[in-house]
Amino acid sequence: MSRTEISKYGEFGLIKHLTENFPIKNESTLKGVGDDAAVLDYSKAKALVTTDLLLEGVHFDLIYVPIRHLGYKAAVVNFSDIYAMNGQPKQMTVSLGVSKRFSVEDLEELYAGFKLACDNYGVDLIGGDTSASLTGLTISITCIGEGEEGKIVYRNGAKPNDLICVSGDLGSAYMGLQLLEREKIVFTTNSEAQPDFEGKDYILQRQLKPEARKDIVAALAEKGIVPTAMMDISDGLSSELMHICSQSNTGCRVYEDKIPISYQAVVMAEELNMNIVTCALNGGEDYELLFTVSMEDYDKIVTMEGIGIVGHMTKSELGLNLVGREGEEIQLQAQGWNSLK
Amino acid sequence: MSRTEISKYGEFGLIKHLTENFPIKNESTLKGVGDDAAVLDYSKAKALVTTDLLLEGVHFDLIYVPIRHLGYKAAVVNFSDIYAMNGQPKQMTVSLGVSKRFSVEDLEELYAGFKLACDNYGVDLIGGDTSASLTGLTISITCIGEGEEGKIVYRNGAKPNDLICVSGDLGSAYMGLQLLEREKIVFTTNSEAQPDFEGKDYILQRQLKPEARKDIVAALAEKGIVPTAMMDISDGLSSELMHICSQSNTGCRVYEDKIPISYQAVVMAEELNMNIVTCALNGGEDYELLFTVSMEDYDKIVTMEGIGIVGHMTKSELGLNLVGREGEEIQLQAQGWNSLK
Repeated sequence: MSRTEISKYGEFGLIKHLTENFPIKNESTLKGVGDDAAVLDYSKAKALVTTDLLLEGVHFDLIYVPIRHLGYKAAVVNFSDIYAMNGQPKQMTVSLGVSKRFSVEDLEELYAGFKLACDNYGVDLIGGDTSASLTGLTISITCIGEGEEGKIVYRNGAKPNDLICVSGDLGSAYMGLQLLEREKIVFTTNSEAQPDFEGKDYILQRQLKPEARKDIVAALAEKGIVPTAMMDISDGLSSELMHICSQSNTGCRVYEDKIPISYQAVVMAEELNMNIVTCALNGGEDYELLFTVSMEDYDKIVTMEGIGIVGHMTKSELGLNLVGREGEEIQLQAQGWNSLK
Repeated sequence: MSRTEISKYGEFGLIKHLTENFPIKNESTLKGVGDDAAVLDYSKAKALVTTDLLLEGVHFDLIYVPIRHLGYKAAVVNFSDIYAMNGQPKQMTVSLGVSKRFSVEDLEELYAGFKLACDNYGVDLIGGDTSASLTGLTISITCIGEGEEGKIVYRNGAKPNDLICVSGDLGSAYMGLQLLEREKIVFTTNSEAQPDFEGKDYILQRQLKPEARKDIVAALAEKGIVPTAMMDISDGLSSELMHICSQSNTGCRVYEDKIPISYQAVVMAEELNMNIVTCALNGGEDYELLFTVSMEDYDKIVTMEGIGIVGHMTKSELGLNLVGREGEEIQLQAQGWNSLK
């Protein structure tokens, strides 16, 4: 494969080259890449803004993550934050710090991932910058989205007795990561070894190419449900429940046997001798939606595909509890991922 | 001085600690730090969005930049991009990547710089994240501002015969950098040496604590002048003129003896045996405003303090020319800073 040095382009030439295949799709984008700032029209909706910084060696490992997937995931995790407000992502900026290890072709692959994400979710790339870095790859993404007045969902609106709902399943992305880490060690020991990924496609995909739950936000709107609180599960269910309970001033009861877990995640956990419920509670990176709804919405929620009711909110003084399969109560603890610890 | 390890706080505890002294000042900020996304009301103005990524060792050197100044400058350069659209900065997000070298006290200093910038320019801190990095400090800032419909100024609106204007003076920030680099070498050779900064306070301040030209944008509005094109001078006058000419499809004539240069910059250039005009044309980091106005606005512009007319736009086919003191014409070349070269 040919390798073009990034220094062949200047900063402006490179940005032009990488962003020229990103047509503007949204009416609210008045001016995208190419000026001191982008110009947006948010006269009809509230503007939602979220940002994420991803550092090589801390947030991702290019030994087993294809760089195109990295681009896709980096974009999608930002979109997920906008959906978690019950909004729609519409624009994003991308800033890159790139060491000499990377070629123009690498960045083309990264941008192919950004483009696929933008196409799939209807988001415009509106700006950013690219500069040299001394070590590795740094990706900073800011996403702007639309929120309808009165329908934006915060973390602080949950009330005692509200139902706690989770989309999809939990722990799969974490088990996918464990699998990749295992195969990386095997490969480091014996470079002839072929990775053993048979029957593990689902957990790998959950780790390498997660999706944001645009479909769930659309389904809730269709049913006329506005959650009382919502966030996306990036750091693990326990950690996110703590945020919602703390900001809503409630406690919660979550039932172990209600936590949705995929077959492949269970199998992988057995292979690795890990407790799958612990992984589902603390694994993170599933980018599913955690939300609470009023009891009045029970009949609507219960018929919705891909949503599980895992418990209910309680008064604050009752604390955060996990009810085990035998009815025993365990206090929930956040052991979610924390790069600073 | 005491040193608190960052690991003492978790990510959320640290963000809370650092951001708790940032009260919300703007009506357009409905929800700041603390949810999946911030919520903004841009129903009355267009939203302007700009972003910058700063990497230690590439964009800044903590050997001679006090970390509080770094925070101030990192924020202000983003505000400058919003003013360059003839807008007003209102919100910003900050994402940090921080290695173990940095303590909580270091981050408090950095945030003190952010706070001073936010206070001076009326900007709200609305979000961001902080994570570990393997090496050094990474700062990613996104700024959102208000632009009035019909008064937003792009780079592409200049016409032949428009006057080319520059605020303040050029080259001082670059001469400040040269001074700091010289003293760094002296200090490396002899750690007993005291830096020699006498009579150099202005160029040092221009490098270490630049300001965005909020005052110029206000003065233009007061006079009823809407520039035909505008940008801020971050990479040097030559480079920025090329952007405006290329996007406006014009040429330009700039007069060497009209380029505003400070006394301290001239003295420093002489000391270092450098050509001050070359430095003023290509130095960058002055964060002054470069803008063009219609000839009709000549009478208004000429009375405004702190604005110099340095030339005029021409037809595209005439190219970009610098007219020397003897009347000789030299083609302008962009030698501005480019981290990728």
